Amino acid sequence: MATLPTDPEQLLDLADAGDRRALARALSVVERGGAAGSALVRAGWSRARHHRAQQDREPGDRAPDRALTVGITGAPGAGKSTLNATLCAELLARGRSVAVLAIDPSSPFSGGAILGDRVRMGDVAGADGLYIRSMATRGHLGGLTGATNDAIAVLGATGRDLVIVETVGVGQVETDIVDSADTTVVVVNPGWGDAIQANKAGLMEIADIFVVNKADRDGARDTVTDLESMLNLSGGHDDGPAQWRPPVVSTVGTTGEGVAELADALEAHVAHQHATGELDRRRSAQRSQRLREVAVARVGRALDDLLATGWGGALRAEVEEAHTDPWAAASRLIERLAQQLTDD
Amino acid sequence: MATLPTDPEQLLDLADAGDRRALARALSVVERGGAAGSALVRAGWSRARHHRAQQDREPGDRAPDRALTVGITGAPGAGKSTLNATLCAELLARGRSVAVLAIDPSSPFSGGAILGDRVRMGDVAGADGLYIRSMATRGHLGGLTGATNDAIAVLGATGRDLVIVETVGVGQVETDIVDSADTTVVVVNPGWGDAIQANKAGLMEIADIFVVNKADRDGARDTVTDLESMLNLSGGHDDGPAQWRPPVVSTVGTTGEGVAELADALEAHVAHQHATGELDRRRSAQRSQRLREVAVARVGRALDDLLATGWGGALRAEVEEAHTDPWAAASRLIERLAQQLTDD
Repeated sequence: MATLPTDPEQLLDLADAGDRRALARALSVVERGGAAGSALVRAGWSRARHHRAQQDREPGDRAPDRALTVGITGAPGAGKSTLNATLCAELLARGRSVAVLAIDPSSPFSGGAILGDRVRMGDVAGADGLYIRSMATRGHLGGLTGATNDAIAVLGATGRDLVIVETVGVGQVETDIVDSADTTVVVVNPGWGDAIQANKAGLMEIADIFVVNKADRDGARDTVTDLESMLNLSGGHDDGPAQWRPPVVSTVGTTGEGVAELADALEAHVAHQHATGELDRRRSAQRSQRLREVAVARVGRALDDLLATGWGGALRAEVEEAHTDPWAAASRLIERLAQQLTDD
Repeated sequence: MATLPTDPEQLLDLADAGDRRALARALSVVERGGAAGSALVRAGWSRARHHRAQQDREPGDRAPDRALTVGITGAPGAGKSTLNATLCAELLARGRSVAVLAIDPSSPFSGGAILGDRVRMGDVAGADGLYIRSMATRGHLGGLTGATNDAIAVLGATGRDLVIVETVGVGQVETDIVDSADTTVVVVNPGWGDAIQANKAGLMEIADIFVVNKADRDGARDTVTDLESMLNLSGGHDDGPAQWRPPVVSTVGTTGEGVAELADALEAHVAHQHATGELDRRRSAQRSQRLREVAVARVGRALDDLLATGWGGALRAEVEEAHTDPWAAASRLIERLAQQLTDD
């Protein structure tokens, strides 16, 4: 096998031309972070912008700085991976190219591969136009959002119409995904009335589309009704045409039932976001957040470097042995950091 | 009603003497963060250390810098709140004083009150020796862990034997809680075989005690067996006496069945941690992590302040409109931050 280039542009050229090894390499470099990762991400960002400038602005086109990004989230066991596999098949049949990022924040030590999930994705995993990547995120200094956004930036530069980010999670993880996604799909199961009630505010805030998966089970109709009444209560009376009401789609991931409707809902949401300018608004907010996130990650890395040195190591030991409280020590640490950054 | 003092020591004196209003005020100040919050947290930390120095080191005593902390976590709908209420009643009957912190990361806009949960806690909520507090954490600059740790520091300074942190979540949120807890209880339900498999690595990493709640439902026995075989597989052959094997406790939160066994398991884990020195090790690691976390939170606040000014606002606008990429902008932002910190 030919050796892959290390130059970011050359690597992205190959990935863009459909070389899966080059894409895998690019994502690994990004996942490791550091200077090489940053260079690749920035190169990807510029390319995606350039690509986009040469296209007409049609609904469903890739947006300025990256591919359209769909987040699929829900508690473990909700059947997200199976659903996602059938959804990918449907999107491929519609002529879309898709990349899947499977995030596994609950397994800091798994090294990134969710074996079970990848097995279930087996049917479509080899298809043309589909690329699947599992990511562990604990190692990335920018955390979940940082690693995901970096990977999205690279995938967006290599000719994918759509990036689907699949994540296990309830709570903060979900909210983080929303910060990166253009469309967020929340997957629940029949009988999850209590769970839905408990997370009402959170779900309403993040879901662009609700999916009741495993809809062949008892209680599916009730779960749909719960979600619809939740939406009725929150919607108010002044829904203008610009307002998006999250549809509730019933699916059976294992048989593909309802998956075409889900794909329709996705496309409707994308079209709605283009038509109302909502996509631009979300992207602006995302970029602004990204700036803060990148800055915080870099400072965090600088702090870690400091704490690994003789001076910082001694400070840390003082705190570990409770001779100095963490707040006083943090002040000394920041002072030192500022000096160092100014000296650089 | 008498006006509460603003001086941290006086406020903590009152809270320590059992004044619930003073404790509530102290926690509100901490939740808001800022200089007043930091002053309170530091005062609490010193007091807890001082208290502790005057006590004998018996198993179950409060540890040096704060009360013993138990994290209870699991997906929404697992019945954590009901279980927690009966567990509190059991611990109170055993003569322990308990504070409950209910974290609600999935509802950034709920303002902190999980109404349903508090209602379910109703039976014990008024009991002497029990204090319950709901926390929203989105507003706190140190995030979930920061706000929780600050609250624990204050509660640990006011005569509680035990702080129970109850959190909804699977994934990163859970892992964050582990970073703060001395004992982590993971609550699952019968029939959660898939969910357990999917999160195997994560669960194994964080659980000191497993609870199969709603154990009167079908499949409870199978779920216990799943967990036990998972533990058998991971345990290996070299389990010394210092090794803790997480017990699997079956409970019915609504009836209190199994809750005494859960309390026993908690006490056994605390005793084990004292006997093996594991508590000291965890606390050292927690303090070290806290140092980093406090430093990152402060730098994050400084960055936010910068981005709110004329210069930073203009930089942010450039990024939002995609004229500058976030990475280049972050470099300029950090440069400015370092100058500013050095000037201070």
